[in-house]
Amino acid sequence: MTTTERSRVSSGYAVVGTRPIRHDGSEKVTGEARYGADIRLPGMLHGRILRSPHAHARIRSIDTSRAEALPGVFAVMTSSDIPIIGDQDLDLALVRGNMRLMAEHVMANRTALYKGHAVAAVAASSPHVAEDALALIDVDYEVLPAVLSLAEARADDAPIIHEDLTTFFRLARFARGDDTGVRGNVASHIQHKLGDVEEGFRQADVVVEREFFTETVHQGYIEPHAATATWARDGRLTVHTTTQGAFPIRAATAAICDVPESLVRVVPTEIGGGFGAKLVAYVEPVAAILSRKSGRPVQVVMTRKDVFEGTGPASATQARTKIGATRDGRITAAQITLSFEAGAYPGSAVGGGTLCATGPYNIENLLVDGYDVVVNKNKTQAYRAPGQPQGAFAVEPVIDELAELLGIDPLELRLMNVARQGDRMPNGVAHLRLGIEELEEAMKAHDHYNAPLGGPNRGRGVAVGFRWQGGQTSAATIHVNSDGTINLVTGSVDIGGSRTAVAMQAAEVLGLSAEDVTPTVVDTDTIALTGATSGSHTAFDTGLAAIEAAQGVIRQMSARAAAIWEVEEQDVTFEDGAFSCAGNPALTFTFRELAAELPGSGGPVTCSVSVPTTGVGPVIAGNIVDVEVDPETGKVQILRYTAFMDVGTAVHPSYVEGQIQGGTVQGIGWALNEEYYYDAQGAMLNSSFLDYRMPTAMDIPMIDSVMIEVPNPQHPFGLRGVGEASIIPPLAAVANAVSHAIGVRLNRLPITPGAVLDAIESKGG
Amino acid sequence: MTTTERSRVSSGYAVVGTRPIRHDGSEKVTGEARYGADIRLPGMLHGRILRSPHAHARIRSIDTSRAEALPGVFAVMTSSDIPIIGDQDLDLALVRGNMRLMAEHVMANRTALYKGHAVAAVAASSPHVAEDALALIDVDYEVLPAVLSLAEARADDAPIIHEDLTTFFRLARFARGDDTGVRGNVASHIQHKLGDVEEGFRQADVVVEREFFTETVHQGYIEPHAATATWARDGRLTVHTTTQGAFPIRAATAAICDVPESLVRVVPTEIGGGFGAKLVAYVEPVAAILSRKSGRPVQVVMTRKDVFEGTGPASATQARTKIGATRDGRITAAQITLSFEAGAYPGSAVGGGTLCATGPYNIENLLVDGYDVVVNKNKTQAYRAPGQPQGAFAVEPVIDELAELLGIDPLELRLMNVARQGDRMPNGVAHLRLGIEELEEAMKAHDHYNAPLGGPNRGRGVAVGFRWQGGQTSAATIHVNSDGTINLVTGSVDIGGSRTAVAMQAAEVLGLSAEDVTPTVVDTDTIALTGATSGSHTAFDTGLAAIEAAQGVIRQMSARAAAIWEVEEQDVTFEDGAFSCAGNPALTFTFRELAAELPGSGGPVTCSVSVPTTGVGPVIAGNIVDVEVDPETGKVQILRYTAFMDVGTAVHPSYVEGQIQGGTVQGIGWALNEEYYYDAQGAMLNSSFLDYRMPTAMDIPMIDSVMIEVPNPQHPFGLRGVGEASIIPPLAAVANAVSHAIGVRLNRLPITPGAVLDAIESKGG
Repeated sequence: MTTTERSRVSSGYAVVGTRPIRHDGSEKVTGEARYGADIRLPGMLHGRILRSPHAHARIRSIDTSRAEALPGVFAVMTSSDIPIIGDQDLDLALVRGNMRLMAEHVMANRTALYKGHAVAAVAASSPHVAEDALALIDVDYEVLPAVLSLAEARADDAPIIHEDLTTFFRLARFARGDDTGVRGNVASHIQHKLGDVEEGFRQADVVVEREFFTETVHQGYIEPHAATATWARDGRLTVHTTTQGAFPIRAATAAICDVPESLVRVVPTEIGGGFGAKLVAYVEPVAAILSRKSGRPVQVVMTRKDVFEGTGPASATQARTKIGATRDGRITAAQITLSFEAGAYPGSAVGGGTLCATGPYNIENLLVDGYDVVVNKNKTQAYRAPGQPQGAFAVEPVIDELAELLGIDPLELRLMNVARQGDRMPNGVAHLRLGIEELEEAMKAHDHYNAPLGGPNRGRGVAVGFRWQGGQTSAATIHVNSDGTINLVTGSVDIGGSRTAVAMQAAEVLGLSAEDVTPTVVDTDTIALTGATSGSHTAFDTGLAAIEAAQGVIRQMSARAAAIWEVEEQDVTFEDGAFSCAGNPALTFTFRELAAELPGSGGPVTCSVSVPTTGVGPVIAGNIVDVEVDPETGKVQILRYTAFMDVGTAVHPSYVEGQIQGGTVQGIGWALNEEYYYDAQGAMLNSSFLDYRMPTAMDIPMIDSVMIEVPNPQHPFGLRGVGEASIIPPLAAVANAVSHAIGVRLNRLPITPGAVLDAIESKGG
Repeated sequence: MTTTERSRVSSGYAVVGTRPIRHDGSEKVTGEARYGADIRLPGMLHGRILRSPHAHARIRSIDTSRAEALPGVFAVMTSSDIPIIGDQDLDLALVRGNMRLMAEHVMANRTALYKGHAVAAVAASSPHVAEDALALIDVDYEVLPAVLSLAEARADDAPIIHEDLTTFFRLARFARGDDTGVRGNVASHIQHKLGDVEEGFRQADVVVEREFFTETVHQGYIEPHAATATWARDGRLTVHTTTQGAFPIRAATAAICDVPESLVRVVPTEIGGGFGAKLVAYVEPVAAILSRKSGRPVQVVMTRKDVFEGTGPASATQARTKIGATRDGRITAAQITLSFEAGAYPGSAVGGGTLCATGPYNIENLLVDGYDVVVNKNKTQAYRAPGQPQGAFAVEPVIDELAELLGIDPLELRLMNVARQGDRMPNGVAHLRLGIEELEEAMKAHDHYNAPLGGPNRGRGVAVGFRWQGGQTSAATIHVNSDGTINLVTGSVDIGGSRTAVAMQAAEVLGLSAEDVTPTVVDTDTIALTGATSGSHTAFDTGLAAIEAAQGVIRQMSARAAAIWEVEEQDVTFEDGAFSCAGNPALTFTFRELAAELPGSGGPVTCSVSVPTTGVGPVIAGNIVDVEVDPETGKVQILRYTAFMDVGTAVHPSYVEGQIQGGTVQGIGWALNEEYYYDAQGAMLNSSFLDYRMPTAMDIPMIDSVMIEVPNPQHPFGLRGVGEASIIPPLAAVANAVSHAIGVRLNRLPITPGAVLDAIESKGG
């Protein structure tokens, strides 16, 4: 049983805001949808990857001869087969920068930098032969001391993971004049500064300062990475893969394999979740190079262990937060320092944390520092609202404590400091129109917020989260069928309903129903450059492209109507799904009627467009959660959960609810259960779904979703991106709720039963 | 060793007329190209078709229960599973016309109309299980008398194959007032009439009247028909198939399965030859219905025997020709009657014969009659220049005899009566600009024509052939890559080089090289409606679409250059592959330079167009052939063969030569070797490539090709369609050569050794 509420500015849309067909629904429910591992090609080989058993080790040599001799083995590769690595030395990194980094990330060159780092791969006639062959590859490792935490990484005597790379990165940073604190394994530093933070704290009547910790967590998508490559002898490379973005995979694969992008065709399959981690090339270059070596199509499918150990989870983080306020609830200053584990290569999501952590508040005096720290773990990657859940977890519990200290309702305190259009974000840029105030008012007025908790050992938590969303170039092509339906071609992989959301926008423009649109996601040869499905921008950007293509269709069809009617083009208008002629009411065509005329009056109408992006803009989410803690076991039970989001305009509310619910559940897992559990040598001990504990339907109640609709002025239908923000508040909201239930602040995730018992014990309970 | 000659009007083209990369070359040569039977889908079943062992039989009942009970069998179908057949009675044919015909053609309903007519099909876990299951289907036939030749079909007491259908067709014809001679199994009649043929014959000094016969021949494409269908539970049907036209297969499959076209996606694979016979749905609806019944993807691949017995060969024909001329070589009248076996359903290529047989000549008094005759054999289909080889074979030997009688050089006689622009075709329409005269002059002047024969038992034959070519709607989409290459998307299946020929036209417009263009052929959801690759129109029509899309790209890029330069759009010009600004010589971009600026100046450029067609127009081919006959064995050896064609403009001359050579070899096979050999019950006795004797490389010398280039004013680059006309003259040219070698006219094909010995014997040799 779900409760769905919408607070909507009356739209007047015919399709946008309704709940029609899910174009991807039937195929996914029936198992007919084809995912990455479903590709079958004649003569296809099966690739498997050998991974480092050490978190940090020099690779003295790799002997592949025994593997190559195994019957059924067609090719064995190491990083020396990767064109931009080859047997060249590491100085190349200084020249080629990230491409080289990407390549060494795909397969370790001279040093394995984390447990699970790929070191070799095999293509064989069956997966079993390939696995047998992996066991015959002899790697001579010299084990090096590993850096396994932020604390170890910053120790004065810490082993330095990237001598050359930090030199390179530091030079770049030095040139930008922002080398504060960057040394050793600290790869980069970000700082946002507004006003005078010291003066701000002087004005404060109360100051709360706390430290927060989160662990490494994985996106936990159901579908492992899987790619199938065919490197034809004419040099053309075709890769079928499960990815969030065919074009980024094309770019990465072409760069790593050192071929022009125009020789690479990437065909995206259906995708079983990505959440940011399927933007990165892991298996595609491996499959490609094995295909080139073997002369056959090669498919590489990861196991779940490969996924946990060899892909990019979200950073473990440490934060120190200090916020001051006046007695009447005005925040005078905030200082936040965020440190993110980058993993084995620089580049965590710390920037998402530093920009957004204080986003819901208008704070005049602000100092935010972010550090990107290299450790011997998987290179981290984006995970839904990258860096922002950890950022909100560093701020929202402090707001909660301040509210307690000041005796002000926590939502009231937030509203007293709410960020409005025109206020400055931490980077100094003015806020656009956004619905924080509307969202917090809705939370405050909500039945859930005002219901009694109804029992002992219970607590209620609230938290809000802010996110800034960019955009990317997108394309769309529309072909009009003679039966009045349209085919809509895009390059945007559909992870969570974007094909329907985009189709509905085209339908809205053309006066059609969603069912009249057949949306297809095609490969990189067949559509113009289109950004990945990431950053919640797809329904917005590819929607804009679909709208523009639909408008192009209307222009062409108006001209066709004019020709048929023998009137001037400018006298033909299109309204409410019908073409008509000014001054002659007898001349009308419905879209369907005119579509039927097209074949005989000049042929089908088609329109292809590419649109640049303006950026999606801000989005805001909030949670109210009730928990009950079992004082005997420390188990936290979620009793009730209401998730709010300013969705701008919900194109297909059912999908939006799904996004809100899904992100919330992931956030709950992050708060209560999930973490990479390592041994002392940096090996993950829980690399299966049995041991890596994600919430299941039995762990949580139905998430009630409340959609606030404050239309985004950046988009003709008012869309904001709804894919990510729901994951931001739960970490803090759940922690606040548990803290209230047991009377001890819990500033370290996950809040496991053991941690709860320790906390209860700490207060002498 | 090949001799290639070109007679070209100087073009000034940079790309058109050169011999760059063959985009399809490497994949086809290395075996990497994926054809219809190469598709593999998870859970895919294998379909096999049961065929009638009788040429004409009532199907009393079909019991599929034993087959259904076989382990591994997932579905069994009969025509009652075809939605538009169902268990309804045949009267529906009167209402739904051709759709119902198509469906019964795919699978016999109450009557099997030819040996090989599909009657049931099975989908099973393996092809072997499927074959075993076919043997368990019990069909109760009542064998009916079969009509196996034109003569039998026209006999007064002939069984009538289609009582209802001929009624239906006759009604239609009666309404058009052209029911002359239409009775019994004669399904339709065509007549062309110019001037007064009786008066023409009165003016003649000599008249030659002859009868001609040809046998059923098959297109002989290497790749059998193969389709893989997935009927998803949401009603969407996806069909991968080897076809000449994804859109016609979409239309036919949708109609036969009674679903809207917009629910059907047809994905064309590479194609291993079609020659007109892969325009028709045979296996697609069967795979689709088996998929719907089994809930799994189903692949149906024909065997060679299936192809011979279950698809559409070219008609066996009979012709009577009477041509009169004056002593000085002016043709005064011609009367031709062509009868074509249609096979089991009406609709032979007789219209192609009646329109084109006399095409190379300007004959004022002309009467051409064509009859479409139903017999109990496979329904015939198009075969390269449909009906025209048989038409030319009914005319060119008579011209040869007239030349002999009049003592005029046979090419000189042709030139004396040559058709020129403005002269009337048999249908009264004026000829467009065409190169018959240029071609015949080139033949006459050619070294081959003037070389001595050099031995006994040798003969030289000449013949010419005319063809009229229509056109079809086509579409093209171009995406500009930032490296200055383009992706060119079309819906035109590439059988013989059209993807390169189309790419070269786009390259010509854009100042690129052919290698800069990646042409891709996509499915029906991804491109606007596009006609089949047939009728030699693709390089012309899809070329026009590519040209228009390229011009659209130039317009957009000019606007982009104007924006970058901050000048007026109309001041930007594009010439020789570069953009420049009027009045400011410093402002220039090469195409590549501007392409690199696009991502940063508004995003990629893309343009999608659909173009109607004007029709390709006329094309002409001619042959000179020398043969030697072994008087002991009757074997005919081709000594030298020169094939001429007015190609308009040869876009990629190597492909054009390939088309000329390929068509010529097929014509030689038709003339000398190929025929369906039947037993008395209408069963084909030679349904394998061992027994159906097509020429191999060992049978024939290299075909020398001579390309005459008289540009076609219908196309900006002057293209004519080059895919078919080369097959027209060989039947007559070879027959004329053999006739000269042995001194007896051979008016019946194939000219087997036995036929030659009989002919030699007939003159007392």
